[in-house]
Amino acid sequence: MNPAVLKRKIFNDPIYGFITVPDELTFALLNHPWFQRLRRIKQLGLTNLVYPGALHTRFHHALGAMHLMTEAIDSLRMKGHQISEEEAQGATIAILLHDIGHGPFSHALEHSLVSHVSHEEISELFMAQLNIEFKGRLSLAIRIFRNEYKKKFLHQLLSSQLDVDRLDYLKRDSFFTGVSEGIVSSDRIIKMMNVIDDELVVELKGIYSVEKFIIARRLMYWQVYLHKAVLSAENLLVNILKRAKELSAKEHEELFCTPALRRFLFGKINRKSFIDDTSLLGIFAELDDNDVMTSIKVWTKHSDKVLSRLCTNLVNRNLYCIELQKKPFPKKQIDELRKKIQDRYKLDAKEADYFVFSANVSNDTYRPDKIRIKILSKNGFVQDISDASDQLGIDMISRTVRKFFLCYPKEFRDKKE
Amino acid sequence: MNPAVLKRKIFNDPIYGFITVPDELTFALLNHPWFQRLRRIKQLGLTNLVYPGALHTRFHHALGAMHLMTEAIDSLRMKGHQISEEEAQGATIAILLHDIGHGPFSHALEHSLVSHVSHEEISELFMAQLNIEFKGRLSLAIRIFRNEYKKKFLHQLLSSQLDVDRLDYLKRDSFFTGVSEGIVSSDRIIKMMNVIDDELVVELKGIYSVEKFIIARRLMYWQVYLHKAVLSAENLLVNILKRAKELSAKEHEELFCTPALRRFLFGKINRKSFIDDTSLLGIFAELDDNDVMTSIKVWTKHSDKVLSRLCTNLVNRNLYCIELQKKPFPKKQIDELRKKIQDRYKLDAKEADYFVFSANVSNDTYRPDKIRIKILSKNGFVQDISDASDQLGIDMISRTVRKFFLCYPKEFRDKKE
Amino acid sequence: MNPAVLKRKIFNDPIYGFITVPDELTFALLNHPWFQRLRRIKQLGLTNLVYPGALHTRFHHALGAMHLMTEAIDSLRMKGHQISEEEAQGATIAILLHDIGHGPFSHALEHSLVSHVSHEEISELFMAQLNIEFKGRLSLAIRIFRNEYKKKFLHQLLSSQLDVDRLDYLKRDSFFTGVSEGIVSSDRIIKMMNVIDDELVVELKGIYSVEKFIIARRLMYWQVYLHKAVLSAENLLVNILKRAKELSAKEHEELFCTPALRRFLFGKINRKSFIDDTSLLGIFAELDDNDVMTSIKVWTKHSDKVLSRLCTNLVNRNLYCIELQKKPFPKKQIDELRKKIQDRYKLDAKEADYFVFSANVSNDTYRPDKIRIKILSKNGFVQDISDASDQLGIDMISRTVRKFFLCYPKEFRDKKE
Amino acid sequence: MNPAVLKRKIFNDPIYGFITVPDELTFALLNHPWFQRLRRIKQLGLTNLVYPGALHTRFHHALGAMHLMTEAIDSLRMKGHQISEEEAQGATIAILLHDIGHGPFSHALEHSLVSHVSHEEISELFMAQLNIEFKGRLSLAIRIFRNEYKKKFLHQLLSSQLDVDRLDYLKRDSFFTGVSEGIVSSDRIIKMMNVIDDELVVELKGIYSVEKFIIARRLMYWQVYLHKAVLSAENLLVNILKRAKELSAKEHEELFCTPALRRFLFGKINRKSFIDDTSLLGIFAELDDNDVMTSIKVWTKHSDKVLSRLCTNLVNRNLYCIELQKKPFPKKQIDELRKKIQDRYKLDAKEADYFVFSANVSNDTYRPDKIRIKILSKNGFVQDISDASDQLGIDMISRTVRKFFLCYPKEFRDKKE
Repeated sequence: MNPAVLKRKIFNDPIYGFITVPDELTFALLNHPWFQRLRRIKQLGLTNLVYPGALHTRFHHALGAMHLMTEAIDSLRMKGHQISEEEAQGATIAILLHDIGHGPFSHALEHSLVSHVSHEEISELFMAQLNIEFKGRLSLAIRIFRNEYKKKFLHQLLSSQLDVDRLDYLKRDSFFTGVSEGIVSSDRIIKMMNVIDDELVVELKGIYSVEKFIIARRLMYWQVYLHKAVLSAENLLVNILKRAKELSAKEHEELFCTPALRRFLFGKINRKSFIDDTSLLGIFAELDDNDVMTSIKVWTKHSDKVLSRLCTNLVNRNLYCIELQKKPFPKKQIDELRKKIQDRYKLDAKEADYFVFSANVSNDTYRPDKIRIKILSKNGFVQDISDASDQLGIDMISRTVRKFFLCYPKEFRDKKE
Repeated sequence: MNPAVLKRKIFNDPIYGFITVPDELTFALLNHPWFQRLRRIKQLGLTNLVYPGALHTRFHHALGAMHLMTEAIDSLRMKGHQISEEEAQGATIAILLHDIGHGPFSHALEHSLVSHVSHEEISELFMAQLNIEFKGRLSLAIRIFRNEYKKKFLHQLLSSQLDVDRLDYLKRDSFFTGVSEGIVSSDRIIKMMNVIDDELVVELKGIYSVEKFIIARRLMYWQVYLHKAVLSAENLLVNILKRAKELSAKEHEELFCTPALRRFLFGKINRKSFIDDTSLLGIFAELDDNDVMTSIKVWTKHSDKVLSRLCTNLVNRNLYCIELQKKPFPKKQIDELRKKIQDRYKLDAKEADYFVFSANVSNDTYRPDKIRIKILSKNGFVQDISDASDQLGIDMISRTVRKFFLCYPKEFRDKKE
Repeated sequence: MNPAVLKRKIFNDPIYGFITVPDELTFALLNHPWFQRLRRIKQLGLTNLVYPGALHTRFHHALGAMHLMTEAIDSLRMKGHQISEEEAQGATIAILLHDIGHGPFSHALEHSLVSHVSHEEISELFMAQLNIEFKGRLSLAIRIFRNEYKKKFLHQLLSSQLDVDRLDYLKRDSFFTGVSEGIVSSDRIIKMMNVIDDELVVELKGIYSVEKFIIARRLMYWQVYLHKAVLSAENLLVNILKRAKELSAKEHEELFCTPALRRFLFGKINRKSFIDDTSLLGIFAELDDNDVMTSIKVWTKHSDKVLSRLCTNLVNRNLYCIELQKKPFPKKQIDELRKKIQDRYKLDAKEADYFVFSANVSNDTYRPDKIRIKILSKNGFVQDISDASDQLGIDMISRTVRKFFLCYPKEFRDKKE
Repeated sequence: MNPAVLKRKIFNDPIYGFITVPDELTFALLNHPWFQRLRRIKQLGLTNLVYPGALHTRFHHALGAMHLMTEAIDSLRMKGHQISEEEAQGATIAILLHDIGHGPFSHALEHSLVSHVSHEEISELFMAQLNIEFKGRLSLAIRIFRNEYKKKFLHQLLSSQLDVDRLDYLKRDSFFTGVSEGIVSSDRIIKMMNVIDDELVVELKGIYSVEKFIIARRLMYWQVYLHKAVLSAENLLVNILKRAKELSAKEHEELFCTPALRRFLFGKINRKSFIDDTSLLGIFAELDDNDVMTSIKVWTKHSDKVLSRLCTNLVNRNLYCIELQKKPFPKKQIDELRKKIQDRYKLDAKEADYFVFSANVSNDTYRPDKIRIKILSKNGFVQDISDASDQLGIDMISRTVRKFFLCYPKEFRDKKE
């Protein structure tokens, strides 16, 4: 018996039952402090304020996506496609690390903590650094991640409009929120995957599962990701960090802060910063949800009444009242509200903007200009899902819906309602 | 249409589907900052280091137990038992608040952060304070909680060896860990509940579900609550806080700390402290998991090599190696290990105790001396579960198993294995 | 304790956990031989030949729909709507009995066993007869069933485009087939139901669940109800009974048959027959899936080679090869196939029609001309779902898809494929 | 792409998601009429009269057990054990066919339809016949089935006290009844399987899952397999066939019967019969649940009042009242009941025995004299589960519980109750 085999690590997962780590290198990466850090970053940020079960982490999602990748590779191999051990490992590592660049609450804070550098770029920076540490053993994973490897379908498995990333997050977010709308048949879709001319396709028998996947994603957007109260909470968080930055900048005031958060919140960090200062990535890796929440809790007692009020509201879940509609809100309505708030809270106009504001959101949809979902018919003909489907026309599945929202404190809600 | 009724708040719950908050007072309590704080305290502390889904909070468990209480009351009413609206509300509030006194990681830290005061006592302190704030409307809830109300079965619903607290936590912990061993038929048990002579009983038809519940609890102890790696992580955390206290006390050294944590970690807090200083409860309410984790992350860079090593190990999930056995570990074995560790890490003997130590744990079992589980036979005869069951004798279900464990850093693991 | 209450019957249900029978009259009806007979009629006929778990019965579905009805009534009462005990009982009984008129494999055999009389009409005949037997206690249920009762919303709960019938069957069919596409949030939809101007509506918060329900139903049509192999099996069954009738009529040949099946298969039964001969309903009630399958098994050895071949094919699950497409199949293609089959099997042209044939199917969709799904916005405004939804236009959700199919024995499949 | 691979057949299964048939030979066997016949034999006989979802068939269970076998083989191979393709196929076929010898309602009818020949013996007869038909390709499967193959662990996978047969049926029976007591972690147990000295063992980490499995099986016995109402129904069925046989034998009376049922019900069939008449196996293969239920339905109108009353009671689910206790029922009590029944129904004493009778049942337990469950500790030491477990002593897990029951018509129930 090979002792190396016996060490194979198994994770308990309430969704798939068990997740097996396929090899030693993957296991070593998974144990790296930079990856373990994802245990402290929630996948859905503040969504747990609305769906109390939604506390799952980016660590758990990455494990889940890795599991689906190994299943997809098994499925393709069973259909006769050659995928070497190295390629399988590369694809597995690429999906495991695909989100390693996320910071805390990154959906809300992508532009507050770091600017002009996306989480994908930071993921690449981490991968490059890990590749040095692991003596080049991540090179193939990086090529697959960047879509520079000849077998394009490996990249499509991890990043296309029907990839294992999406399959896992829809399933996982449904499970932990309890919103059954997002349940997708990842099993069936993976069993129906095939490769034609180096393109990932889904066999015709799986078309209803693909349709369901598209619809499920659409519904999850409005029911969870863009849920009113989630938007309200995220905007509250953005405003808190904006105010904290403002205070810090203008008044040289001392704000309680963890060291890592201080560096990112009060410095001006962009892509170039990471390249100029190679230690910065390590500091970024020290940041997680705890830094943000701890600081906000302390700030509830700050002397700045805007900051303390905003923080108290978030900590006690006293979220903004939020209205959604298809048209922009009239300037007059916002101005009147702002006036009332200024008066009641004794704020100047600029400060009042922290308490009343309007913006808009729209859902992500199927985009014909990105890597498409292809359906393989029985006779070997490959079609875009929007052509193959009897149910879903391209106009329907690619239709973006935009909604405008208006936020203000609950105490200013019109009582007539 | 009654607008008050329409406001009835519904929570999404992945376990029960929906949880409806039964009335305005309960909803107000649920929105109180002291209750909202439970959103930031995980039910199972560090268990997520072993079962990555186990991130559910005390907030979520309290909601779940409240839901089961309303179901149990409905079930008893359907069987003809009179339970007034006030009594129902009292029982509901009592279960909602039963764990409000828990601090962060309280399973591990019950004696590190506060001493000589249990979480139950702190729960009562919170309830007393809330009763003042809510003008006496919690009085009945408090009497039920303290088992001072005439209808004893209401107390038994919330605190006995088959109460809604245990039903919810077994179900919830199973769900989020993915360990199916703990699944219990809470539905069936609640449908089979009845009251005889003011005692909560379970009708004979439900006996197999009760047996299953007892076994499930037993298995969850060893599979989850006392899982080796969980014990290892909890002991690491205890040692960290012990070292931090020690450093702070002896050397007046400045340790990064959130204000609330500082008060509890470095002060000597007991039951009397809360009574002497009425503001203390409010400060306790500011403490949650974030304070602990944030501080530990900062301490990874502390100059004390014991503290920084321990903290780094926890943050990077480099847990102690842990051995379990039925007999105590020989002193000689421990001494030899301590010697090696001292040498390698260059520590004095006392410091080495942070890295090698032995203790023991035992599971909680059915205890004939506590409020028993009673089975109602068809002819109206009431028996203890251990007499009514054909499968489980009292000797079996009340047998406590004690296990000894030995912890030390992984690098000292015997390589032969 | 009221002994009547204690008798309340509980059913184990893998979907809802438990189903409680609400009252004595409902329990008596449920125990009536005419209702118990539904235990022997599968909800999905021959679908288990494709999805082996799909063996659930009309009995089980009726229980499930009854359960959802009691939940819907509870939910509406909690919102302040007056529903008397009699009305609740009426609605419950009406849904319990709504499908009592189904015969075995009625989806396939509606026109083979009885003609010119629908299962709904037979349901009404049963209800009328039971009303006599139960001394008029079903009168209100019958009025609700026929939509003759003043509170129209009670009828809408049991028969509209978003009724408890559909909610249960989608959920149940998904569960037993394992096709997750059909999972609907019946809990959420029921919690969001309300009544405005005597019309059943769904509150805006539930709109995504309603959208999901419409999509789920659409996908279930193509994935399960109109699945190719299911169509193939059903057509085989229809042809078997057609041939049996033909043989019996023409040749006075003795065919093995259960007495009840003989009466319906070989007689000419229509609506008038039931009225003229009051004993006929009782004989119809003796028919179930067993009669059909038993007879077919015996017919596998019949001397008529068409009948025996068809029966052998069904019993051994040697189904027709079936092709589906959007356009009709060319007559030439069918004629050529028929010729080959005639030659190989030595049949005359008419006999060959049992082995090759083409027809078409289409899915049921949202129909604006039927009882619509109404959404209640926050301001009290009521809209049709197709207007309220951002995702689903009326053109999309009411689009019927028609598909043509061609069936022939597998041995004639073109080998090139 | 290998077209043979693409033909790989997938079954939808609500429990495992998908079940893949591993090879062509297995697929051919699965399509054989003798195996397809298991689609018409329910796994749990009349249990659906108590748990309405329990309609799953022996076909579905055999598929499920086959699925677990392929998973177990994968798991053992991953641990470095050599299992050739031929051996894997042999084990898979052996488990697929292990129950092929079951007749309809065989739990109840094992001694009514065939005597002195067990279903295992008939399974072997079928396998031998199939081996001829498939030109010897089942030889290895038969050797594994009979435990004549050198690698004993392959036999243990399919027939021991922790085999894939039991894992699947507990899981499946739990799923379809909705009784969560029987849920077992088949995934975890299979992942923890290993082989030491040609013996199947479970690694120590899986011990709690094994304990849970033993307890689950015990609870399923009393909650489902030996449920009072199930016992009542099965005894009613046994009495019906006994009476039918009696009538047929004594009076040469013509009873409606399907041809296959007639042969087995009215002939005297034992093991020798199958050997003497090689066509008998084919006739046995024509028998299924439909024959039995159809005949009973017709017999409800038979002129023998004992037979017609018994049949009517079964068809309308008017089961015997059944009492269970630990001691035998006093002869006097039974005699008094018999007298009353004789008088009321106007029967002779022998006829009355069909309506009142007593017998006993006992559950199956862990038996140290059969193939044991072995636990592999970390140091390579192998122990019996009863020694390795802290929770379950051998006395507890091997304790058989015997219960006596008394059956009689419900109308004779003492009304005082």
